[in-house]
Order: sequence, then structure tokens, then C-alpha cells
Amino acid sequence: MSDPLTIIGSYISPYVRKVLVFLEMKGVEYRIDPIPPFVGNEAFSQLSPLRRIPVMCDGELLLNDSSVICQYLEDKHPQVSLYPVDIADRARARWLEEYADVALGEAIAGKLFYQLGIKPNLFGEKTNDAIVQQAREVDLPAALDYLETQLPAEGFIFGELSIADISIASFFRMAGFVRYTIDAERWPRCAGLVARTLALPAFAKLATFEDRALRTPVPEQRAVLKAINAPLTDATCGGAPPRRGVIAID
Amino acid sequence: MSDPLTIIGSYISPYVRKVLVFLEMKGVEYRIDPIPPFVGNEAFSQLSPLRRIPVMCDGELLLNDSSVICQYLEDKHPQVSLYPVDIADRARARWLEEYADVALGEAIAGKLFYQLGIKPNLFGEKTNDAIVQQAREVDLPAALDYLETQLPAEGFIFGELSIADISIASFFRMAGFVRYTIDAERWPRCAGLVARTLALPAFAKLATFEDRALRTPVPEQRAVLKAINAPLTDATCGGAPPRRGVIAID
Repeated sequence: MSDPLTIIGSYISPYVRKVLVFLEMKGVEYRIDPIPPFVGNEAFSQLSPLRRIPVMCDGELLLNDSSVICQYLEDKHPQVSLYPVDIADRARARWLEEYADVALGEAIAGKLFYQLGIKPNLFGEKTNDAIVQQAREVDLPAALDYLETQLPAEGFIFGELSIADISIASFFRMAGFVRYTIDAERWPRCAGLVARTLALPAFAKLATFEDRALRTPVPEQRAVLKAINAPLTDATCGGAPPRRGVIAID
Repeated sequence: MSDPLTIIGSYISPYVRKVLVFLEMKGVEYRIDPIPPFVGNEAFSQLSPLRRIPVMCDGELLLNDSSVICQYLEDKHPQVSLYPVDIADRARARWLEEYADVALGEAIAGKLFYQLGIKPNLFGEKTNDAIVQQAREVDLPAALDYLETQLPAEGFIFGELSIADISIASFFRMAGFVRYTIDAERWPRCAGLVARTLALPAFAKLATFEDRALRTPVPEQRAVLKAINAPLTDATCGGAPPRRGVIAID
């Protein structure tokens, strides 16, 4: 019996969340090494040349990049398919995933959450309010305006749930960590799709671990997550030096 | 008979080159709207929400992102497959493509070529020598050190030619535009793989158009490319205001 697939990465990361939702939906057994986001030592660089999370280890295969990992999981475990069957829809789903990774990644992970969550709580630095304002008033409205033209009024984007819905919802889940919610009057399709997707059992299961990870000081996270039955690795593969902060916004 | 597939993007871009090599290798008829790189007006933003090239139009389908477009072309035209059959190899090929897009994209397109080609020649601005030095002495050596551990001494990375070889070679072709060549004594595998890949007929055919595009002032490019039988669109889909410069380094 081989070791279960391992994911190195934080429960807080939207890129990690996409992959964990894939694993949950596909029923693949896995373990997580829950390293904090935005940190990572030299050993981590060896595992992740672009210094990104998640990293996946499946037997001999070490793999980086959430989009590449999700497509690998689809190829290897095609049951509960999470890519549309139609070739053009499949391409559009991958494009919406890329758009979310870049546009929502920069606005939500790189600006909003980094400024309001990581800097004050993990690094003890001051929030740059101008960057927060840019994300809230320029970047996110532009992204939501575009997405509103791409999303359906009901159901999922391509009928069945796909990588596109999962990606978009994963980023807005992170936005919720710093109390950003989509204005449902201005962007009803975006608000509806994110709410429907986050209500799925896979997202709800992960939310328990995410909420605890957010509110637990980094050095205590493994013990606390273990106590609530998060599927942790025993070894720490990409461990960063422990830091004192908690990431939650109170 | 429907219109042929259209690519909006410059012959100079490594992201466009990946897609054009795919089309050439797969024998798919196409037309190109050869807009200059690093520019693009408001109409272009409508076609490309992240303001990137290439953009693909295939019938009703408008698609962005070179990785997404290449995978779409593979799905729609699986003959002359350019992704490995083995699931783990296919994942590793996609990862190497992503690594090239990010690490080589930043070092070669974002730093080296932008500073030495675009800024002085297209924008009439001064090269930042410190950024060039950073790319040459830090970023590219780091990327080549990593790639040297991933590439074979002979042949292509996964036996048959794949997206991984095409991506890596596409970026180093751009590096060649500003006279950067891989030190074959220090990184023999990288130098060998890039040379073997760039020698393929698809790359050689495109090189003719690339060389002319580099040495022709932007307002004259369409006429000059047409005269040497580049497969141009009649309409300009993502046209940017003409500029005076030529991009070539003399």
C-alpha cells in the first residue's frame, strides 16, 4: 500500500483550496502539510521552484501549480469529472480558472488579504490602505464586471460543477476572511454562483479547518488542526520557521 | 466554409510563438492579426481581459491564454499530439510549460527583451541596465540551473516533442532577439534542447516572419509581412495605434 497523496500548502490559500476541493469531490485520500502562506524556507524552494503553494507529491511524482495539479487529478481520477465534456466549454472553463488565478489572485490574495490579514497579523507590519482601496474600488469591481458577463443566473457555469466555479469561489472564500462580500445588487450572478458553490459539502468541510487555521497562532496550528481531525501529514515537508502571529482579522 | 482560426498577437511574443508552433505542427489553417507587443487599445481589452496576447478566435469561441489555447488545440486536433500520453509525464510537461511561462517569461520577456528591445526602440525610453544585469546574472542562471536538472542529454524531454520543449524553446528564441545565448558549457542540456527544438521546420518557418517583424517599423509591418506571405487577417481585430519604432536591436 503506497502512501496517500500529499499536499503541501495552507488551508488559507485559494490555490490550495481548489486542489483540496478536487480531492474531496473525487474521493481521493490525501494528507496535508499545512505550511503557512507567504513564507517558506530554502527546503521549500527545492520543492517549489516558483516558491508557490500548493505542492503535490503522489508517489514519485512531485508537482507544482494548482492548475497543473487539478488537471492531473482529473486525468488520473476521471470519475466525478470537474471539466466540461464539450471541447469549447472545457477551454472556456480553463480560461475562467486562469482569469481567477490572475485577476482575483492579485486583487484578493496579493492585495486585500495580504494587506489586511498577513501584514498586520503575521508580519507585524502596517496595512497599506491605498492598496486595499485599489483592490476594493478598482480591481475587484473590474473583475466582477467581467465575470458578471460570463456567469449564469442559476446553476453552475457549464451546467455541471467545474474547475471554473471552484476557482472563482475559492478566491471569494479568501475575500470573506477579511470581510469582503460581493455586492449582490450590483453583481447578482457573481454573488449567486459563489454562494451556491461555497455551500457544497466539500467547501463546507474545508471551511471548518480554514476557520481554525485563521484563528490559531502558526506554531500551534498542526496540533489544533490535528485535534479537529484535519488529515495532516506526520512529516513536515516544506516547513517554514514558526512565527507568532495569527492571521485572522478580529 | 467557416473562416479560418485567427490569432491576435505579435510574431515576437514567445506566448504567441507556442500557439503558432502548435498550429503549424498540427496542420491547422490559421490567420494572424500581428499586433505589436506591449501595446493594445481599449478594444483589445474587450477581447483580452488580462490584456495579454495571444487571443484566439475559432468560430464563435474567443479564447485567451497561451496555455489554455494550446490545450484546446490539442483537444480539438489530437493528431500530431503535443502532450505526453503518460498521465504523470503529461502533468510534468504542463508544469514545465508553466515554469517557462512564469520564470522565463519574467526574465526574458519582462526584463531582458523589454529593457533592450521594447523600451529603447518602441517607446524611446532608456534601458535600465540594472534590470538587464539582474536577468542575465541572477534570474536566467537560476532558471537554467533548475531546467538543467529536468532536461535530457539528447532528444526531447518526454521522448516525443511536447508542449514542454516548445515552451522553453519559444522563450529562448526571444532571448536570441537581444543576443542572449545559453552558455553551452555551463548548461549543456538546456543549450542542446533549445537548439534541437528551434531547428524544427515549424520554428524555422516562423523565424522568417519574426526576423522581418523585428526589423520593420510597426506601421509597415502588415504590408511587409504580407509581401513575404505571412498568413495575415484582412481585418485588424486588436489593432493598437501605430507607433514609429522598430523593435530590433542593431
